Amino acid sequence: MNAIMSPDELEAALRAVGAARYHDKHPFHRLLHAGKLNETQVRAWALNRYYYQAKIPAKDATLLARLEDPALRRAWRQRIVDHDGEREGDGGIERWLKLTDALGFERDYVIAGRGLLPATRFAVDAYVRFVGEKPLLDAIASSLTEMFSPGIIRDRVAGMLAGYDFVSKEALAYFDKRLTQAPRDADFALDYVKREARRPDQQQAAIAALTFKCDVLWAQLDALYFAYVEPGLVPPGAWVP
Amino acid sequence: MNAIMSPDELEAALRAVGAARYHDKHPFHRLLHAGKLNETQVRAWALNRYYYQAKIPAKDATLLARLEDPALRRAWRQRIVDHDGEREGDGGIERWLKLTDALGFERDYVIAGRGLLPATRFAVDAYVRFVGEKPLLDAIASSLTEMFSPGIIRDRVAGMLAGYDFVSKEALAYFDKRLTQAPRDADFALDYVKREARRPDQQQAAIAALTFKCDVLWAQLDALYFAYVEPGLVPPGAWVP
Repeated sequence: MNAIMSPDELEAALRAVGAARYHDKHPFHRLLHAGKLNETQVRAWALNRYYYQAKIPAKDATLLARLEDPALRRAWRQRIVDHDGEREGDGGIERWLKLTDALGFERDYVIAGRGLLPATRFAVDAYVRFVGEKPLLDAIASSLTEMFSPGIIRDRVAGMLAGYDFVSKEALAYFDKRLTQAPRDADFALDYVKREARRPDQQQAAIAALTFKCDVLWAQLDALYFAYVEPGLVPPGAWVP
Repeated sequence: MNAIMSPDELEAALRAVGAARYHDKHPFHRLLHAGKLNETQVRAWALNRYYYQAKIPAKDATLLARLEDPALRRAWRQRIVDHDGEREGDGGIERWLKLTDALGFERDYVIAGRGLLPATRFAVDAYVRFVGEKPLLDAIASSLTEMFSPGIIRDRVAGMLAGYDFVSKEALAYFDKRLTQAPRDADFALDYVKREARRPDQQQAAIAALTFKCDVLWAQLDALYFAYVEPGLVPPGAWVP
């Protein structure tokens, strides 16, 4: 049986999950950020990652539907605003589509998800289901990968601009916004988890939820690496350049 | 087999559902609006109806989680903003609590839902489940009772102010806002349903969804009438003045 942790010990344990398992350590990301992928591989990444972006509002609305406190809902709904924007042409999903535009994809093709790797869909859908079915504390803890994202975003933007002449600063506008949004969201969720995870079983569940979420991100990169880097076996029906 | 209707014929069929089954015809509402209930009966109505109000953001976030188009989500999310407000002390749920305050309930008691009639919970929870499980068209059509609400709200506010000296205009502030919010929401949903319900089976499903929603509202009043008007048998555990 696990001992109870203080809130700060719990935070340290959560940060240790990120240090061990966050997808900045994945070989696909190392190649992406070092400018060592070819254009096809970068395009495959942006195409598949669109599905994750597009499902984030479904994930957050699923969570919103389970929150019983209007104050918590007000805070959480900002995530949906950030992704869907205030009007047509605004928001994180739209900014991701500007990236896939810049990489030469038709919007209809990206939005329809026809060229996705099946593993992308499986991983992302598992995340939405997790947030709908697990205890609320676990659902909120699973968002805590945002604690680790500013570092990877800075590496990504700098690395991609230096490494790929087919990627412009405008095409990477999605990431600029996330540098301020993600820490705000992560602070809120971390405070919630530190406050509400009082029993040892809850604390272990929060750690497990964050581990699960790291797996969701990692699995998407495994599938990209397998299909488009090595061995390069694109599954039937997935995008072929 | 049903024939296909034009969009305007479908609208007429939907309005006919309201004319026959909307809860403005329920005897409990007739008494409420005519000033013929006693204070206990008005309090029971406000207490139970709070649960419906409190679950509306869960219903709308459940629907939001199923919408795949950011533009639709932006329009639909305004309903959550209306109910939860922009800040502490704002929004429809808070305005409903001002009514239960004015009627002498402790907020903790109202929010905990301990004194609810079980039938209130069953009906409201069935609505949230319906919106999560049925085809999206049916889920959106079930919101169309808002087409009929401005009339009932005007009757209610005028009738309650005239009939009950324990109800003030401030206590009924919830309804003022709904006079503008409900028609905007209803117009949006009606346009959606008229546009998307193209096959006869979809049109019949939209009519059935609105009928179901009328049942949800009607059943809540049946339970209030039974418990607090006639025969006046309050179920075990429900609020006794």
